This record gives sequence, structure tokens and C-alpha cells, in this order.
Amino acid sequence: MSSKRPIIVSGMRPTGRLHLGHLHGALANWVKLQDDNECFYFSADWHALTTNYHDTSVIKQAEREMFVDFIAAGIDPSRSTLFIQSRVKQHAELNLLLGMITPLGWLERSPTYKEQRENITDRDLALYGFLGYPVLMTADIILYKATRVPVGVDQVPHLELSREIVRKFNFHYGEVFPEPQPLLTAAPKILGTDGRKMSKSYGNTIDLGESAESTQKKIMGMVTDPARKRRQDPGNPDVCGVFYLHKVTSDAETVAWVDQNCRTAGIGCVDCKKKLLERLLPQQEEMRARREALLAKPKDLDDIVQLGNEKARAAAEANMVQVRAAMKLE
Amino acid sequence: MSSKRPIIVSGMRPTGRLHLGHLHGALANWVKLQDDNECFYFSADWHALTTNYHDTSVIKQAEREMFVDFIAAGIDPSRSTLFIQSRVKQHAELNLLLGMITPLGWLERSPTYKEQRENITDRDLALYGFLGYPVLMTADIILYKATRVPVGVDQVPHLELSREIVRKFNFHYGEVFPEPQPLLTAAPKILGTDGRKMSKSYGNTIDLGESAESTQKKIMGMVTDPARKRRQDPGNPDVCGVFYLHKVTSDAETVAWVDQNCRTAGIGCVDCKKKLLERLLPQQEEMRARREALLAKPKDLDDIVQLGNEKARAAAEANMVQVRAAMKLE
Ligand code: SF4
Ligand code: SF4
Repeated sequence: MSSKRPIIVSGMRPTGRLHLGHLHGALANWVKLQDDNECFYFSADWHALTTNYHDTSVIKQAEREMFVDFIAAGIDPSRSTLFIQSRVKQHAELNLLLGMITPLGWLERSPTYKEQRENITDRDLALYGFLGYPVLMTADIILYKATRVPVGVDQVPHLELSREIVRKFNFHYGEVFPEPQPLLTAAPKILGTDGRKMSKSYGNTIDLGESAESTQKKIMGMVTDPARKRRQDPGNPDVCGVFYLHKVTSDAETVAWVDQNCRTAGIGCVDCKKKLLERLLPQQEEMRARREALLAKPKDLDDIVQLGNEKARAAAEANMVQVRAAMKLE
Repeated sequence: MSSKRPIIVSGMRPTGRLHLGHLHGALANWVKLQDDNECFYFSADWHALTTNYHDTSVIKQAEREMFVDFIAAGIDPSRSTLFIQSRVKQHAELNLLLGMITPLGWLERSPTYKEQRENITDRDLALYGFLGYPVLMTADIILYKATRVPVGVDQVPHLELSREIVRKFNFHYGEVFPEPQPLLTAAPKILGTDGRKMSKSYGNTIDLGESAESTQKKIMGMVTDPARKRRQDPGNPDVCGVFYLHKVTSDAETVAWVDQNCRTAGIGCVDCKKKLLERLLPQQEEMRARREALLAKPKDLDDIVQLGNEKARAAAEANMVQVRAAMKLE
């Protein structure tokens, strides 16, 4: 663990098996970041409670699937620290301390808070913990003195809020925390088999390491440009999910070939999909093999996560010692 | 630690040396409760942050003074567990978990929240942690499965809120926590030397174990019934701080004697005060001796609190194991 490398922290709520949307939206980036950074990747199981407190039974199974997929996607547990948020109690301690200095107004103005309260209507989200989501997120990040946080555009306001909390903390208690900077992740558009955004709730996903047979079936049945009714109609790749998968899967030459031949009806959708599968199937197979290997040795996965929890706890505790001293609580 | 005895939890914010107001408002009751209950008494140092986050430098010194006074007042560390809230991280963990199910409306309606926001105007109290004070208080109590909580009348609404949180928790996750019941403490009126409520902020206190000389000087200079200007004027003990001290210090016979002879001008205020000192000085001397003994052996106090922290942690952790299992987080 070289302390010279920038520290990166990112978490994901455990929601079950991951799909190609997760891979290209976050995971592939996490994998790359391992080369030049000290990375902490965690299961945000406490965060899962903020919206799912009424049904927690799925969290731990989903978490296992998620860790398997992390590793299948290329997260290397010998280089990165994989851990579970709720196993590092320092997250709760720092969350409590930061809450003491966080104005309610900052939280009430958070766009995600306002948006989710409007969108989720089947249960009461006007809960104390839900409002405090950005405080816990801030604790998650700065507990490790992360300087860079991979985020999508929608998370930028939250990270700005984290920086404000850091500034207020440092103002009152001295310069303990660096201000975490956003590492904007270009999240390529990934559509599901029905042409809508790939999402578990739409049932239109292609999972990481899904079998060759199933992947093939799903791709061949995938909705394409709806205006391209017959083989001889020219298509518009910009509205076609197959094309977006090409862009993250195939080489540049192939992408250009699809782009041009779709527009000129030089290829049919079946050709296009078969071309995609040439790259996608081996990729899926590679991930499937890693998944199978891990699932065959559940003890190995346990050990990885347990070791990760211990490493995270040690790093977190070292920083909390400074926090408590700065706040004169020790 | 017999598990058959009712469990009692109570905390106090560390604010420095305690005075006779604290003794008769809470401490004397805590001392009595030791006989029939398993008692946990703690320094609420995290709570002190909710209103004093901007100046934390006094907390730890105040906490030491407070523990010394606890013991001087008769809390017996071999029977009761004395500990520091921030040393038992499970308080923060349970606080976080309870926050996930606590509606904001419950907190915003809390009378103390509304009142303090109106009364404290020299700093911004619209803070996330301040709003969440009743959640942390609930965690403090139920973490030990306390069934009875000594409270003043003003704290009854908070405890009702705690019971609501417990009911919601038990509804979602099963019957883990008993509902804590208020143990209403009759808090006798204690006035300071100037006739106002005894309070450090008024500078009108008589501290626990204050020296004989100083106690005597303060009592002899104490404001009495302002309408009793001359020795021959009859007085009204009901408006006199000396009389309230008699009621908590002297025997019933003496209290009756003061009551009658004040109203008939049978005694003067000097006689009355001297009578009070007959009992008060030995009491103060006893507490002073206990204070001195402890202050002479700082290591003993450290050991008491460290052992208390360990006992509290063990009890808290045993209950958190159940909480995490009930919430399916483990
Ligand atoms: S040719 Fe390819 S990109 Fe064009 S519509 Fe068909 S599947 Fe989509
Ligand atoms: S006699 Fe005692 S009770 Fe009456 S006014 Fe004087 S001090 Fe107070």
C-alpha cells in the first residue's frame, strides 16, 4: 500500500447480479483506476437501507453476487481493497461527527433528495437517514482521505456538498481532510434488449458473464432501429442499442464499419449482431470463467472480503485517530 | 452483572463541575437506583457536540470533573457502569441504523428542537446532528435494552419518540428492543445564591464538595425572601432559595420548624442559614473528601472509566449482534 499513490474510494449499493450497464458505467473505469491509484471499492450496504429499509432480506445475497462480478470484471483484490461498509464501523462514527456540522439546508437543497422524494411514491422517504445520505457518502469518502472520486455527472452536486462539509470541518478543527475532487466518468450509453436504458427493473439486461447461449439469444432478439423494417432500409445506429454495445465492445474499425453500413443498408441487423457477438461472447466467457472459479470456492471470496474489511478498518482507524484528536474528543 | 435486574441508562453532557442543582435534580436519584437496578451512567460527549461543535476544547476536562462528581455524589463504580459515549462506537452504529427508519416529521415536531432553535440565536443550530438528537438519545438507551430511563418531565416527549422508534424497528425487524419506560424523577426546585434557578451560566451555583469556607460564605450571602427586609418581618419560605435547600438537606422536623418560624418571624434568616449549614457542611465535606481522594489518584479514575467503557462495549456489542442479525445485515 504505497501512500504516494492517490487514494480513490467508490461504492455500489448491493442490488444483485451486475449487467453490461454497470460494467461500462462504472466497473470498467474502476478496473483502469487500479493501475495508478490506491483503490477502495465497497458494498454500500448501509446506503441500501436508505431506500430499502423495509426489505433487507436481499442485501447480503446481492452483495455476494456483486463482489463476484467486481472480480469477474477485473477488479484485482490483490491490488484493490474490497470491503463492506457496515463492517467498518468508523463510517458510522464519522457520519455522526460530520452530521453535527452539516446544515440542514445543504441537505434539503440536494437535487437527488428532491428528485427521489418526487419519484418514489410507494413508500415514505421523508426519513432522517434518507435526508442524510450525502453526509454518509462524505464520511465514506473522506474516511480514507480520498482525493479523487469517480462519479457520474449526476453525482457532482453531492461531491460539491462533500467538499463544503470538508471545508467546514477543516475550518473548525484544522486541516485534517483533503477536498475530494470528482473524477468524471464518461458513462457511455448502454441500452437494454428492448431499447430502453439497461436496468434490472425493466428486465432488459445482459448480465456480466451470462452464458454464451443466453447472451446470443438476447442479442439476436434485441430491438434495433425501429424504423429499419426491412433489410434494404437504411438504419440509424444512433437510436440502436446494438450500436452502443459495439462502441464499448468492438474495435474502432468495426464501429466505423457498422456506422457506415447501417446507414447505407450495406449490412443487415443480423450481420451486425453476429459481428458484435464475435467480441462480446469471448468477453462474457472470460467473465463467466472468473465467476465460476470464484463461486466454486466460496471460502476464497470470504477471505478476500474479510481481508479487505481488515485493510479498510486499519486505514479508517488511522484517520479517525486524527479526527478525534482534532476535535479534542480524545 | 445480574441480568434479572432492570437495566437503567442515563447520560449527562460534560459541562464541568456539578453543583447542588445537579445533585438533587438527577444524581441523588441515580445513586438510589443503584440498589435495585443494573445502571449505566455515561458522559454524553457526542451529544455535547450537537450544541457545542464550535468549541470542543472544554469537553474532556469537563468530563473528568463530571466523573469525579458522580463518584463523590455516591455513584459506586463497583456496582454501576460509568463510561464515555464516544468510546462505545456501537452508539454511532445504532444511531445510523435507527436514522434510516425515523421520519423527519417526528423529529421536527419535537418540542425541544423547536424551543432550542428559538432560544439559541448566537449560532446556527439548523444542523443535521442537532435535529437528530432524539435518534442518538434513543440509540443510547436501547443499545443496552434499558427498560427504565430516569427523566424529568421535559424529557417525556423525547422518550415517547424513542418508544415510537422502537415500535417501528420491532415492526420491521422483529421484537429486538423493549420499549423504554420513563422513570419520572421528582426534581425538587433548587435556586442559586441570587434566587434564580441554580445554573453555571448565572454564576450562582454551590458546587458539589465546595470547601466549607466557600459554602458557608455563599449560603450566608444568599438572597432570601426579598420582602423580608427586617428581622421582625414575617417571611415566605416558598419564595426563598434557602428553604428549598433545607427541603433537600435537612430532616423533616427542621424543615417544618423553618416553615413555621419563617412565617411568624420566629427565626431570622441568619439562624435559618446556620441551621442549614449544620447539615450541608458535613455533606459537602464528605463529597469533598471523596473528590480529593480521587483527584489524588488520577490513575484510579482512568481505570474506572476504562473498565466501564469495556463493560459497556461488551453489553452493547451483544445487543448489536442481535440487531444486525434481525436486520439481515450479517
Ligand atoms: S445494422 Fe446494427 S446498428 Fe444498424 S440498426 Fe441494425 S443492429 Fe442497429
Ligand atoms: S427564614 Fe429561612 S426560609 Fe425564611 S426567608 Fe429567611 S432564609 Fe428564607
